[in-house]
Amino acid sequence: MAEVATLADAANDGGTQRDARLYERYRTTPDVSDAWNETLDTIIAHRSVRAYLPDPVPAGTVELLVAAAQSASTSSNLQPWSVIAVEDPARKARLAVLAGDQRQIHEAPLFLLWLVDLNRLTRVGETLGAPVDGLRYLESALLGAVDTSLAAQSAFVALESIGLGACLIGGIRNKPAEVAAELGLPSNVFALFGMTVGHPDPDRPASVKPRLPQQVVLFRETYGADDNRPALAAYDRRLRTFQREQRMLERDWTEQATTRVGDAHLARSGRHQLRDILLGLGFGLE
Amino acid sequence: MAEVATLADAANDGGTQRDARLYERYRTTPDVSDAWNETLDTIIAHRSVRAYLPDPVPAGTVELLVAAAQSASTSSNLQPWSVIAVEDPARKARLAVLAGDQRQIHEAPLFLLWLVDLNRLTRVGETLGAPVDGLRYLESALLGAVDTSLAAQSAFVALESIGLGACLIGGIRNKPAEVAAELGLPSNVFALFGMTVGHPDPDRPASVKPRLPQQVVLFRETYGADDNRPALAAYDRRLRTFQREQRMLERDWTEQATTRVGDAHLARSGRHQLRDILLGLGFGLE
Repeated sequence: MAEVATLADAANDGGTQRDARLYERYRTTPDVSDAWNETLDTIIAHRSVRAYLPDPVPAGTVELLVAAAQSASTSSNLQPWSVIAVEDPARKARLAVLAGDQRQIHEAPLFLLWLVDLNRLTRVGETLGAPVDGLRYLESALLGAVDTSLAAQSAFVALESIGLGACLIGGIRNKPAEVAAELGLPSNVFALFGMTVGHPDPDRPASVKPRLPQQVVLFRETYGADDNRPALAAYDRRLRTFQREQRMLERDWTEQATTRVGDAHLARSGRHQLRDILLGLGFGLE
Repeated sequence: MAEVATLADAANDGGTQRDARLYERYRTTPDVSDAWNETLDTIIAHRSVRAYLPDPVPAGTVELLVAAAQSASTSSNLQPWSVIAVEDPARKARLAVLAGDQRQIHEAPLFLLWLVDLNRLTRVGETLGAPVDGLRYLESALLGAVDTSLAAQSAFVALESIGLGACLIGGIRNKPAEVAAELGLPSNVFALFGMTVGHPDPDRPASVKPRLPQQVVLFRETYGADDNRPALAAYDRRLRTFQREQRMLERDWTEQATTRVGDAHLARSGRHQLRDILLGLGFGLE
């Protein structure tokens, strides 16, 4: 890890775009392979866009993103997900309220709802007279969540590669039953997350958020037992530098993250009830 | 949807690489935007590689893939995942046995274990004296699974963009407690899936698997109530064509998929016990 003083140093002082991208991501320079290409550049430059121009996405874009999504791996080719593209402003506004009234959902011309969908397999089973009772296990819902996420992430990279921006909306899990009613979901389907999509507003640009140093998340052969507190303290400092640049409230990641997973925060969002609500929507979770 | 007779038609008969990629993915041509670039080409040409050359992956590659993974979105910047890179042949062999003894795990020079990791936040909470009791809810494990999957998918696209191949190994969930012991996982961590990584063996090439037609998975405004049986029957036919080309056993997707989610199949894999095993590993799932 060579410490580089600033992003400008990385970009201008004999550095390359690759160095600058990695520096933005870590606020330090990790030792990574020299490989670089457009795809890596797109992936590592990812940022969550929350400010959009009003222009609709071009015709055929949703279908292109779905082609990217369907190209992701899916366990045993089960394809246990669906996606709903919402563009109607009134419906978008109602969904926004259900997801914590986030302005970006009103603003984005397109709101994609990524659904864990075990209903399609249930109906196929009914048609064939084949028992699909394994869908009642937690494993099936988890597998659905994994495959939905893999698909959505490929769509995310795809849309960034053509100059669009997006942001994932976990707040759609605050009120899953109301969301299911709004979208007309059948049983055994729920909205895992939403995704606002649109043209990023150049006057309100999004930034690359620095992540934890690799030594905290990457281990070799077995889980690392090292004391990670010095590395987390270094990350707290780097994130504060970022927050200062962004004129955001300065706050340690360690404090921010633990508050977020406290009981009180989860209860305020309503997501502490998720298990019961999913049972009500027809999932077994056994 | 214009039906194209063959892949050769799409690729040669006045078509483009884009047309050929989309045809391979659907065995028909969806109406998608004309946008195309290297990243879309990489994503839509995805295939699961199960046959590898013995060469190790180049130095710094794991770190590059982790940089890609960490660049994916993560809810409230919680980063609730870790990854273990296993290259030791003996450990790989033991993990292979736990995951249904898949040959590709022995063969791949690198096996990545993607972990839902709520332990890091638990330890941070202990250090700060902050209660992280929201981690006991199903929501927290689900959020962890989503973010781990988003990260892994960005790594997957990244590795494909530099000519490597990979395959996700859900079989690692057959015996999560034994996997946790092998990897020395602390409480509140489990291996969501594995990922074999290596140089694809050109003598045993992998193929692009056709997916469901878009009309079955993509809806506008609300969940589609149309009868999807004709579209599924068309997909069964296209998949049989693919299976014939691959000299695989010909079998309808509808039959394959429902068998896979039957009670008997899940019980054979051991994954019907996942909930109890995760409780044993410290997850709350409330």
